[in-house]
Amino acid sequence: MSHSCPKYLKHLLVKPGSKLKLDDVDPREVSFLGEEDDARAKLAEDIIEIDKLQDRLYAEGKRALLVVLQGTDTAGKDGTVRGVFNTTGPIGVSVTAFKQPNELERAHDYLWRIHMAAPRRGTIGIFNRSHYEDVLVGKVRKLAPKDVIQERYDQINAFEKLLADNGTVILKFMLHISRKEQGERLQERLDDPKKHWKFNAGDLEDRALWGDFQDAYQTALRRCSTDAAPWHVVPADRKWARNCIVASIVRDTLETMNPVYPKMPWKASDFKID
Amino acid sequence: MSHSCPKYLKHLLVKPGSKLKLDDVDPREVSFLGEEDDARAKLAEDIIEIDKLQDRLYAEGKRALLVVLQGTDTAGKDGTVRGVFNTTGPIGVSVTAFKQPNELERAHDYLWRIHMAAPRRGTIGIFNRSHYEDVLVGKVRKLAPKDVIQERYDQINAFEKLLADNGTVILKFMLHISRKEQGERLQERLDDPKKHWKFNAGDLEDRALWGDFQDAYQTALRRCSTDAAPWHVVPADRKWARNCIVASIVRDTLETMNPVYPKMPWKASDFKID
Repeated sequence: MSHSCPKYLKHLLVKPGSKLKLDDVDPREVSFLGEEDDARAKLAEDIIEIDKLQDRLYAEGKRALLVVLQGTDTAGKDGTVRGVFNTTGPIGVSVTAFKQPNELERAHDYLWRIHMAAPRRGTIGIFNRSHYEDVLVGKVRKLAPKDVIQERYDQINAFEKLLADNGTVILKFMLHISRKEQGERLQERLDDPKKHWKFNAGDLEDRALWGDFQDAYQTALRRCSTDAAPWHVVPADRKWARNCIVASIVRDTLETMNPVYPKMPWKASDFKID
Repeated sequence: MSHSCPKYLKHLLVKPGSKLKLDDVDPREVSFLGEEDDARAKLAEDIIEIDKLQDRLYAEGKRALLVVLQGTDTAGKDGTVRGVFNTTGPIGVSVTAFKQPNELERAHDYLWRIHMAAPRRGTIGIFNRSHYEDVLVGKVRKLAPKDVIQERYDQINAFEKLLADNGTVILKFMLHISRKEQGERLQERLDDPKKHWKFNAGDLEDRALWGDFQDAYQTALRRCSTDAAPWHVVPADRKWARNCIVASIVRDTLETMNPVYPKMPWKASDFKID
């Protein structure tokens, strides 16, 4: 297991077998980050280090990092990608946004399209939504029978272990915002014509089911935080804090992975450039 | 045709039907960029604008931009991606590096894997190498019979026109470096153990065939610079100049495409956030 979490963020890690109550996590409580200015300064350093570490990961070419981002609408999944990985650039980083499955995807088991999008060795893969939708919206909207949903938690754990055993380090982040904060963000999207394309009437239907979704998240967090692929609950009402937390854990994990520039089976003096 | 090139770079555009002589293009002559400091300042602006334009392209979701980067080993393909697109981040930008085709890819026509990697609407796709390898290394190394290679130029033009007709704007850049510059860059890779993984003994074999490759490039540039998908020859011995040129043309093209935030079929007042 190469994933790692700095000490001051360890309380955000969902322990395997935990009886986490999501309600107990305050989406605005981020005093553990210290002063905002200091945290932002650390973030600026972290994203530069992540870029350097990604270059080593790419050069090494043996392992991958998978970052799973989940959260209700407006929780800040895209914003996290921008805030944490923009400096890393598109070489060796892929982002997959999972929408409603298309016909071909629905013709397979629900993990088929996820497996197809798994990051290749040497790269960082970011999932904007993921297979967890199949135990979140799948559960709340009753898109599959209860017993089928129930089986999925173990299937997901086995699938993630497969990836982990084969060299993919997995970090999962639930971006945890309050209902109030979501209301403000949805309103912002309505108020700014440039953000209208991000607004989806369906988001309001999901919002009406807020409690059901929180329950479904709580179950998924409890059942699927494993040694192979731990969940973190990120207080995400404050965007800067959210980015600071994710960046810090990603950096710590990449440092623990400690990818190395490969040693080649030759000496530089073997070659002469004419 | 939405691709566009600023006036001061128009001479880098290979005109359809041109009898371009690659030897006549000096990889170090970039006086048309003016003072280096000014050019770098413009680059800094350009990459920020490219990021903003990419956001609009993504929101619009109707068209794509394909940027094809070709050049001999060490010409700076990765460096160009970093220099021009790092600020744009990985959302909505995908980079595909084409290596030697694998067994599955070889079981199809040479454009099959290229088509699979074509950027989806709303995104920028960057090809690090491309189908042009099939008329470059394919020709020089005689990987296919002469008449098969000959047919490919028209096939490529038809394929690129298909993409263009269906909403993908295509920009092709040949990063043109001198043999001397390549020698220095290869030596750098040998001198720095952190860069050893980038060094490939096969690069020296290709270097020994420098003239053949330049000829193959010249033919591809002459035969495949079309209205639908123009080639640009980028003097690339100076990395900053290379980035300035590519960024300027990409920005100009995106501005000409002028993607717009979509107008939704509803008014903000239709919704009430509770």
